[in-house]
Amino acid sequence: MKRIAILGSTGSIGTQTLDVVDRHRDLFRVVALAAGTRTAELARQARRFAPALVSCAESDGERELRAALDPAVRVASGPAGLMAAATECGADLIVAATDGMIALDAVLAAVERGTTIAVANKELIVAAGDLLLPAARRAGAVVLPVDSEHSALFQCLLGERTERVRSLVLTASGGPFWEHSAAEMRAVTVADALRHPTWQMGTKNTVDSATMMNKGLEAIEAARLFGLPAERIAILVHRSSIAHGFAIFSDGSVKAQLAPPDMRIPIGYALAFPDRLESEFAADPLTALGAVPGAAALSLTFERPDPSRFPCLELAFAALRAGGTAPAALSAANELAVAAFVAGALGFADIAPVVAAVLEANPPEPLTLQTLRAADGRAREAARREVARRTLTAPANRAAVRAV
Amino acid sequence: MKRIAILGSTGSIGTQTLDVVDRHRDLFRVVALAAGTRTAELARQARRFAPALVSCAESDGERELRAALDPAVRVASGPAGLMAAATECGADLIVAATDGMIALDAVLAAVERGTTIAVANKELIVAAGDLLLPAARRAGAVVLPVDSEHSALFQCLLGERTERVRSLVLTASGGPFWEHSAAEMRAVTVADALRHPTWQMGTKNTVDSATMMNKGLEAIEAARLFGLPAERIAILVHRSSIAHGFAIFSDGSVKAQLAPPDMRIPIGYALAFPDRLESEFAADPLTALGAVPGAAALSLTFERPDPSRFPCLELAFAALRAGGTAPAALSAANELAVAAFVAGALGFADIAPVVAAVLEANPPEPLTLQTLRAADGRAREAARREVARRTLTAPANRAAVRAV
Repeated sequence: MKRIAILGSTGSIGTQTLDVVDRHRDLFRVVALAAGTRTAELARQARRFAPALVSCAESDGERELRAALDPAVRVASGPAGLMAAATECGADLIVAATDGMIALDAVLAAVERGTTIAVANKELIVAAGDLLLPAARRAGAVVLPVDSEHSALFQCLLGERTERVRSLVLTASGGPFWEHSAAEMRAVTVADALRHPTWQMGTKNTVDSATMMNKGLEAIEAARLFGLPAERIAILVHRSSIAHGFAIFSDGSVKAQLAPPDMRIPIGYALAFPDRLESEFAADPLTALGAVPGAAALSLTFERPDPSRFPCLELAFAALRAGGTAPAALSAANELAVAAFVAGALGFADIAPVVAAVLEANPPEPLTLQTLRAADGRAREAARREVARRTLTAPANRAAVRAV
Repeated sequence: MKRIAILGSTGSIGTQTLDVVDRHRDLFRVVALAAGTRTAELARQARRFAPALVSCAESDGERELRAALDPAVRVASGPAGLMAAATECGADLIVAATDGMIALDAVLAAVERGTTIAVANKELIVAAGDLLLPAARRAGAVVLPVDSEHSALFQCLLGERTERVRSLVLTASGGPFWEHSAAEMRAVTVADALRHPTWQMGTKNTVDSATMMNKGLEAIEAARLFGLPAERIAILVHRSSIAHGFAIFSDGSVKAQLAPPDMRIPIGYALAFPDRLESEFAADPLTALGAVPGAAALSLTFERPDPSRFPCLELAFAALRAGGTAPAALSAANELAVAAFVAGALGFADIAPVVAAVLEANPPEPLTLQTLRAADGRAREAARREVARRTLTAPANRAAVRAV
């Protein structure tokens, strides 16, 4: 029985992780669940999976949970609760599926104890990967990717010598606006951006996928996880989201991983690693590759991304090349800009310019825990100012800006 | 320095192996070269690569070689020469690239000594895999595939647990007649059959590729190499020969290997394993995946084979299911029928009926070295009779029949 702690259990990855655990109760046991403010949902999860510890964001929620749960369940909240979930429940594996940087201390502490981490929280690796990955190597902790693209690359690299990897290719669905002109991009609404063609994801990921910042963040994540520089990471647009990543080797050979676009596959892979789960099985090879059952043929198409319509991609690669605190600033500024867009305070086509302005105003510093936190704070503040400046010309948006 | 012995050095795989060795003289040294009757070519190879031993098929050739080469080079011939090349030259790796069953004793002896074998000679694995693979396991000898499809599958299975493999898919180019009707198939000439759309191969392989018997033999080879039953091996037609094989795992994940259709890539992989060679590198990811340089997009298409127009495929799967000596009989009958077709004594569409008649007349027996040799001989004899019977109605072919 593998003991699992889930940080961010009520989010998209958290609930899908519990779905996988539920189908494989003989293999996995949940020892800790940590979430934000959805305490009713968290209490339901706790009754169902019986963890030793449950933690939420705030002390109000802590009181609600205490009232709702068996007194034998330990209830905690805030950073101390996350830390307890990650380090005090005997977890063999921690699923890091919170947003932003909130779980940094807890994950770093777990890694330093040698605990295996399944990372779905890509912002954490983007911003702090250069701290987390070396700490994991020192402690012998395994860091497993949960993103489908990084899971694909991880699988392609099994049994390979990393010095023979020439480059890694992440595929991108292109999101809902791959065929939009620059003019159409400017008219995009929040509702448009939340309709993703192939993947079911949380709100922030879905907007990031529409701007392709998601793929930029993933490029940085891949560089950190697999130790490669920016020029060895490439993106190809693949609309059907069946092939998730390619590893190109020094001898001209390429390996790819393919699967239907269902996050439970990479989640299950991370939970079961180094084994694989036994799942239901499409006996027909075309169907297993992602074809509609009964189809006579399957075509997989790959094309180059268009940096002129998706400037976020270039911003992310620039931050990766700059290094130090630049990826943290990129990620923080983007988080703020996306929240402003979802709140109606910023146009879709203004997300990239906000991030670009923040990066320009904040040159990178060498990465430490201190410079990371400072850069994160400065980038959020600068992004907030930049959003406000842009909405001064659009007075109807001012109330929304105040709400961000 | 890895010491290499090549059995079948003047054939298509043999010469391409020497091409790979030539580009990586710092890694590989040729210790033995064995070939058939192309002694002038063999002598040229020997002068260039300076092996300790050179062997050809017959004693006439042996005399020619002795006259042509430095007296310090050991010259041998026939089965004893193959055996010496495989077992007496200190080879770390033997490339088995002869035709048919001729190298069986030599390869078996090398395997029993624990020597690594790179097998390009698929008929050997088809007919004798159930003897060779268990012998390799007992002796701890590594058997590496050289066929591009099996190399692909081998690469996809690196670091994986074999009990989690649900099925293996071999891709097929479909050969030159994939779009032919049954009527057009009957009019195919030898010249037509020798024009392969994507691969440069020897004559027999090229004809086998046109009938798709090649893919049937490869399905049997995959079953033997990777220990899976017939129902876990599938074929998909993929005209562009870029994706060579897929491994489908128990968790719904699929791994693929892709490379331009150049046999030097899988040959180099087998020579360098567990490392990979450093080759010239297409920096552009679409080009690395096989797109024409500068292309905006790449599409990879997969479709199901059509057993009605390619009956050889079904015959091979039937022989695989029957087991024992059936694959040996299939392979021997096919070798004879292809030779008769190339000699002009048999129609293209008659290759499959000849093989089917031989299989029907020769029920399988449990496989031993004795039953294998007997089945091989009986199948050749039965195929010869069947070819002759079919050409009685076509008197112009009789001279050609006698020549087979």
